[in-house]
Amino acid sequence: MRLEIISVGDELLKGHRVNTNAAFIARAFAGIGMPVGRVVVCSDLEHEIVSVFAESLERADIVLVTGGLGPTRDDRTKKAVQQLLERGVELSQEAYQNLAGRIKKRGLAMSALLRDQAMVIEGSYVIPNTKGTAAGMIIACGERFHHHSLVLMPGVPSEMKAMMELTVIPYFAVLSDTVLRHTPIKTLGIGESTLADMIVDVEDHLPEGTTLAYLPHATGVNLMISTLGRDREMVDRDNRAVVDAIVRRADKFIYATSEVTLEETIGSMLVSGGQRVAVAESCTGGLLASRLTDVPGSSSYFLQGFVVYSNEAKHSALGVPEETIKRFGAVSEEVARAMASGCLERSGADVAVATTGIAGPSGGSPEKPVGTLCLAIARKNSDDVFSRTLFMLGDRAQNKLRFSEAALRELWEILRCG
Amino acid sequence: MRLEIISVGDELLKGHRVNTNAAFIARAFAGIGMPVGRVVVCSDLEHEIVSVFAESLERADIVLVTGGLGPTRDDRTKKAVQQLLERGVELSQEAYQNLAGRIKKRGLAMSALLRDQAMVIEGSYVIPNTKGTAAGMIIACGERFHHHSLVLMPGVPSEMKAMMELTVIPYFAVLSDTVLRHTPIKTLGIGESTLADMIVDVEDHLPEGTTLAYLPHATGVNLMISTLGRDREMVDRDNRAVVDAIVRRADKFIYATSEVTLEETIGSMLVSGGQRVAVAESCTGGLLASRLTDVPGSSSYFLQGFVVYSNEAKHSALGVPEETIKRFGAVSEEVARAMASGCLERSGADVAVATTGIAGPSGGSPEKPVGTLCLAIARKNSDDVFSRTLFMLGDRAQNKLRFSEAALRELWEILRCG
Repeated sequence: MRLEIISVGDELLKGHRVNTNAAFIARAFAGIGMPVGRVVVCSDLEHEIVSVFAESLERADIVLVTGGLGPTRDDRTKKAVQQLLERGVELSQEAYQNLAGRIKKRGLAMSALLRDQAMVIEGSYVIPNTKGTAAGMIIACGERFHHHSLVLMPGVPSEMKAMMELTVIPYFAVLSDTVLRHTPIKTLGIGESTLADMIVDVEDHLPEGTTLAYLPHATGVNLMISTLGRDREMVDRDNRAVVDAIVRRADKFIYATSEVTLEETIGSMLVSGGQRVAVAESCTGGLLASRLTDVPGSSSYFLQGFVVYSNEAKHSALGVPEETIKRFGAVSEEVARAMASGCLERSGADVAVATTGIAGPSGGSPEKPVGTLCLAIARKNSDDVFSRTLFMLGDRAQNKLRFSEAALRELWEILRCG
Repeated sequence: MRLEIISVGDELLKGHRVNTNAAFIARAFAGIGMPVGRVVVCSDLEHEIVSVFAESLERADIVLVTGGLGPTRDDRTKKAVQQLLERGVELSQEAYQNLAGRIKKRGLAMSALLRDQAMVIEGSYVIPNTKGTAAGMIIACGERFHHHSLVLMPGVPSEMKAMMELTVIPYFAVLSDTVLRHTPIKTLGIGESTLADMIVDVEDHLPEGTTLAYLPHATGVNLMISTLGRDREMVDRDNRAVVDAIVRRADKFIYATSEVTLEETIGSMLVSGGQRVAVAESCTGGLLASRLTDVPGSSSYFLQGFVVYSNEAKHSALGVPEETIKRFGAVSEEVARAMASGCLERSGADVAVATTGIAGPSGGSPEKPVGTLCLAIARKNSDDVFSRTLFMLGDRAQNKLRFSEAALRELWEILRCG
């Protein structure tokens, strides 16, 4: 069973929009053992849509399309399908009811432009849109296209996602006869080639049907172990064996073997240890607090954050001695330690993390260049305040992200070692 | 001149990675008047790469490829090109020097695996890699492929971006004979169809070569006005005329007609008004401070942030009366106002923004459901504290983002009205 995704839209081709829809659809179908073979992004031009659809329908059993179903005039997908399949459109009563209800709720009047959102290609299986107005469709393309299927969904991510979850995936799941299992291995503090060297023998002896992919990202590298087969038990066993072998070799760089973030991992460690955290941030500007509070339920262990950009704020909010700032500079391990200690004391937390540094683009000096980070971690009932200085090479946004990642990494290390 | 982009990599097809590279490349080439006609994502399988390359080289004058140049065994792009063009590889001295220097800096030894990173397709124009080890290539594909060009770059975004900026764009810019001008129109507080109604007459009379695209995103909708032509003056004039006409019709919803963020716009307003800002956050958890401090130079107007998750912190850090919290609840306009006033006073800022709400997934009640946001803005020399309550429908991450967006929107409104 071959699948392809077509994303329609000039905004994608012009680079004004990143194609997150294709990634979502690919992941969802992989989950039911139907991997995607190709993704094509094409323009809003009707003749271009027609030819891309025709090519994909030659190769693929199922062609999943997003975009071009909206009410504005750059939306040409339905017109292109009419031309390609030589079919008309008809009003879907179900889609019309949904549309009318939504319009009424918003206090708008029905118009011809809006009514068109409930028109579907003749003979379509209608995909209800629970998040918007445009109807989706599953279309059997007939003998000329080898009875392959065309699935039309809107390009608005929330609408597409709801359609996928409620209708499209359940509809196609029954057709799949293979099982696909993915296990992510999430690492920190290690580079791609060092990790590759460490697990070379595992990679040399992967079971049939199992692949290992390196996913380097802004702050490190993750692995993805994928196993495809027909027997669920064997697929699970083969996948597990590879994951276990890698964990044995690289244990101390691995924080998770499931789809959790470092923030979530830290949250679970804090909860199970009965500890509460507070942060004091200069160069990360609130990002560290924001990442920790991205986790549902974080209010049970995240107490308080201090974003102290100015020297006055470092002194007044955290009690950092003015003299320490004067003597060592605002970006120094001494100030970071004073920030962490002040944060611990004033918040009543069990562990406090502090960052001070230079995110850039300006503010650097030869001794303390842009990208310098001083971080400190203080803990209750311990006079020993951990601190270290790191150097990053990035622009402001990258540095903020890497600074926050480094702080989380050290916190993880400290929580792990107890 | 037709361009296509090919992104090689199973991680993209499996949806483990979003294709940001294609968006970057498309935007960069659009900037020199060379729009991209199609993007194709294909797997790491050698035969698949060969057939996708062959198809694109039939249609496009320039085919831009990312991915598959790394040192690990899932990197097959060079092998595929060797097969397709029937050419060998040769060592690039330039690339080898770069490679050896990088390896030395990191204290590693040269290996056969690493040396392969400096091998290029015979007769290539080598693209230096200033951020990594894999050499890039521009390859003239010969008569069989109509003398079309193939450009190979690594999939690591920072390496690809540096290659694009330093080599690829300057190399191809001399070939372009058209001019493309994009102008974004950034709006807030208005939906897609309302905006469309407001500017329907402009859209009905777009000059030839000019297109108008709607770019809805998580918190609103932006427009992109694009004009393509051969005469720079005419292109600029046509583009400007459309932008002006839209601004006349929707002025109060538009915060920028250039590539600036709302945070940057607010930063400029604060600087020009000589005002300094502080924030007090509960439900946004540091995200509001982080967004404001994403702007280079924000340390000149951003004083301090208080992330007060617990009731104790709201009281101790900001002086919110315990009685106010008890009587109205932590999520109330009364508490938001007390947070804003406390923040203003304790930070010494000219304007203070406070958020308290329920990001979810738990913590809601019938009167205050998940998605409730109370926000307040206090200003120096004014007893009048602005406050309002809003309701969002999203998951935790979406709500945090929309909460912070709403706070920025109100701050923008207040700064604008003086």
